[in-house]
Amino acid sequence: MNDQLVETNFGERLPAEDLKDAWRLLDSAERVDGFRLLAPADAHEFFLGLAAHDQTDLILSLPPNERRPWMRLLPPDDAADVIQAADEARRGELSSLLDDISRREVTSLLAYAEDDAGGLMSPRFARVRPEMSVDEAITYMRKQVNEKLETIYYGYVLDGQQRLLGVVSFRDLFSAKGAAKVADVMKTDVITVPDTMDQEAVGRLFAEHDLMALPVVDSSGRMKGIVTFDDIVQVVQEEATEDIQKIGGSEALDAPYLEVGVGAMIKKRAGWLIVLFLGEMLTATAMGHFEEEIAAAVVLSIFIPLIISSGGNSGSQATTLVIRAMSLGEVRVRDWFRVMRREIASGFALGGILGVIGFVRIALWQKMGVNDYGPDYLWLGVTVGLALLGVVLWGTLSGAMLPLALRRLGFDPASASAPLVATLVDVTGLVIYFSAAAALYLNRSA
Amino acid sequence: MNDQLVETNFGERLPAEDLKDAWRLLDSAERVDGFRLLAPADAHEFFLGLAAHDQTDLILSLPPNERRPWMRLLPPDDAADVIQAADEARRGELSSLLDDISRREVTSLLAYAEDDAGGLMSPRFARVRPEMSVDEAITYMRKQVNEKLETIYYGYVLDGQQRLLGVVSFRDLFSAKGAAKVADVMKTDVITVPDTMDQEAVGRLFAEHDLMALPVVDSSGRMKGIVTFDDIVQVVQEEATEDIQKIGGSEALDAPYLEVGVGAMIKKRAGWLIVLFLGEMLTATAMGHFEEEIAAAVVLSIFIPLIISSGGNSGSQATTLVIRAMSLGEVRVRDWFRVMRREIASGFALGGILGVIGFVRIALWQKMGVNDYGPDYLWLGVTVGLALLGVVLWGTLSGAMLPLALRRLGFDPASASAPLVATLVDVTGLVIYFSAAAALYLNRSA
Repeated sequence: MNDQLVETNFGERLPAEDLKDAWRLLDSAERVDGFRLLAPADAHEFFLGLAAHDQTDLILSLPPNERRPWMRLLPPDDAADVIQAADEARRGELSSLLDDISRREVTSLLAYAEDDAGGLMSPRFARVRPEMSVDEAITYMRKQVNEKLETIYYGYVLDGQQRLLGVVSFRDLFSAKGAAKVADVMKTDVITVPDTMDQEAVGRLFAEHDLMALPVVDSSGRMKGIVTFDDIVQVVQEEATEDIQKIGGSEALDAPYLEVGVGAMIKKRAGWLIVLFLGEMLTATAMGHFEEEIAAAVVLSIFIPLIISSGGNSGSQATTLVIRAMSLGEVRVRDWFRVMRREIASGFALGGILGVIGFVRIALWQKMGVNDYGPDYLWLGVTVGLALLGVVLWGTLSGAMLPLALRRLGFDPASASAPLVATLVDVTGLVIYFSAAAALYLNRSA
Repeated sequence: MNDQLVETNFGERLPAEDLKDAWRLLDSAERVDGFRLLAPADAHEFFLGLAAHDQTDLILSLPPNERRPWMRLLPPDDAADVIQAADEARRGELSSLLDDISRREVTSLLAYAEDDAGGLMSPRFARVRPEMSVDEAITYMRKQVNEKLETIYYGYVLDGQQRLLGVVSFRDLFSAKGAAKVADVMKTDVITVPDTMDQEAVGRLFAEHDLMALPVVDSSGRMKGIVTFDDIVQVVQEEATEDIQKIGGSEALDAPYLEVGVGAMIKKRAGWLIVLFLGEMLTATAMGHFEEEIAAAVVLSIFIPLIISSGGNSGSQATTLVIRAMSLGEVRVRDWFRVMRREIASGFALGGILGVIGFVRIALWQKMGVNDYGPDYLWLGVTVGLALLGVVLWGTLSGAMLPLALRRLGFDPASASAPLVATLVDVTGLVIYFSAAAALYLNRSA
């Protein structure tokens, strides 16, 4: 069937752009069909441009005898990603498609956690020796150009124990005298990445230092590979996506939205939603305690949604700002006191503004005859206004501090999602509101 | 005062890392003091590693006679950023520090919007001509190595009208025969970026194609500059930060959290919070209409927070997932029907789960004697359960569709923040709940 399709279409080529646009809409078999219609040169580039899980899916959808060349097209770090994206049971199958050297490289990469620098690096970098002359180094690097190196634009100067002594860029070599020694030209204050560094931290190093590649070293200073900028752009995207999805109160999807099956999507979302719902049930418990107050003055219930939502909104703001600042390394746990001071100030100001608007709204609607809040409407206004101040202050403060507390306890700050903060603030918001009502309003109208 | 400080500390050098750690805590004068204590070589690197607004601040804090070398250290695209980060009134002053050629370059860059490819590019790229031999091109590019080019690793092949014919990488040149013509070696299917393309789209191109630099062309095909990967890592970070801050319901801060003054921070947050608050006031209006229902059965009020929060939480989930997918180009407006179908399915499933939990909670607490919801407690459970189904379905659907609608209308999808969706869903949630109560519960207990 497939063979026939290829045959009937022989000579007719599918533009790579068309396949790319349609990709998300196709199932595995259709993808294979489309892929076979690409011109050979396009197919290579198309394949290399796919995300790892798409490459895995495509290779495994091809008949076994067609898989080898595609697997071998991949540099070792990408091959490791493809193997990692496959089901446990099929990893050996993929790994066996590689040649011996690559398989050994890939196996050592797979020993690293996927999110570590070691899981991101390529072991194929250009090595030079300190005693080489500049001309020798250029010639030597030029010779390596056809080997599958990640980059030829940096040469890493290693000693006999594979320890990193320095780096020379092609640019440095070109601007130096040909007879000079590499050891005299190389940069020795090299920024290195420990192989166990989290990829988010590696991303920040790149953003700060504008480098094309960073060398990865193990705990004894031996160079293991390089991480290149092209991996990092994707890492930065992925990490931001994870943060955003967690802030929104779901698990990270780990795949494009439209490619996640509806069932899997529901699973990723139901967990948090149920946890939040169980937490939110405390509001029903709290409300149970205030039933008498509501029975005494039903008018109080009118402002419940307004008050708890204001707390939730201000908490969402604060928590997302702090989570992002922590991801970017702008705020650290030791900054907690400064964050607290700032957020208390912000909370007072924001709560004050909303409190005044709330008071004015009640007084104005009463005066204009839109609503009738009874003779004590001004006290109702004061109650709602002060409750808003308290709730917004509390929402802002707890929203800002929660991510810091989570990090301190070893959790991901992004788990302090906007909905989680809103849920936490809802219960407290009710308590604040009904306490204010008991103190200022209810004893008056009773 | 400052001079004395430099003198007394002469010989004592401050490690650049220390200054970097303390940077956020220092005011402008202290930054200048610290900066002067760096070793000259460190100072250059430290300065170039600063964010544009910090560079601007530092230059303007230096005495006028010390400013020139720092401004001239910057490549033209960075110089343009520094000028853009200054107050309108001081831009001319900064621009006058540049040499004539750079000033002309910077002025033409400043004509572009900051977020466009044109505002991001550097005009300094290596030009080669199609009729050159490979050896000539290598020699020619090698000669340009000491000019301040953004990268020497790509040569751009231009015709007499500055139109881009192709690209040769150093790698291509090295692996080609020395006598071959550039025109025969160059890659002609070059991915180019229109000078008016939004930087977010440029970031996506980089993430997809693993390139070190992309050429920027104007509407008539003339090459204007290159955008390099190091600018892009920052762009990708910035765009994600903007998205996250908007999703959290505040304006984008445009500066690190701890460096934004408390007053400015409040301003960035108050706007949206007030808008949301005014929207949320509709809940008070809606609740006003249901006062009678509540008076008839106060028990209904107990579940108000639970129901509206569940709608808000499911809406937050859906909207953040869709916003991020749109930012990454995974979901486009034309996918609206597929998104709708998926979210209806998800909404039914998630709402169904929460509805059942809600029903069970009411029945169980009644049976166990924790609460007394009266003789019609099962009907109350059904009311709450169905309302949850409806509210979650509605929250999910509107949260997912709102970003698509905003994009369709020409707005930023990220404005469909989690708090905005929660606020929209709150009012509808109340209506759904009290409608269910009127149909299923109230006529029964009355």
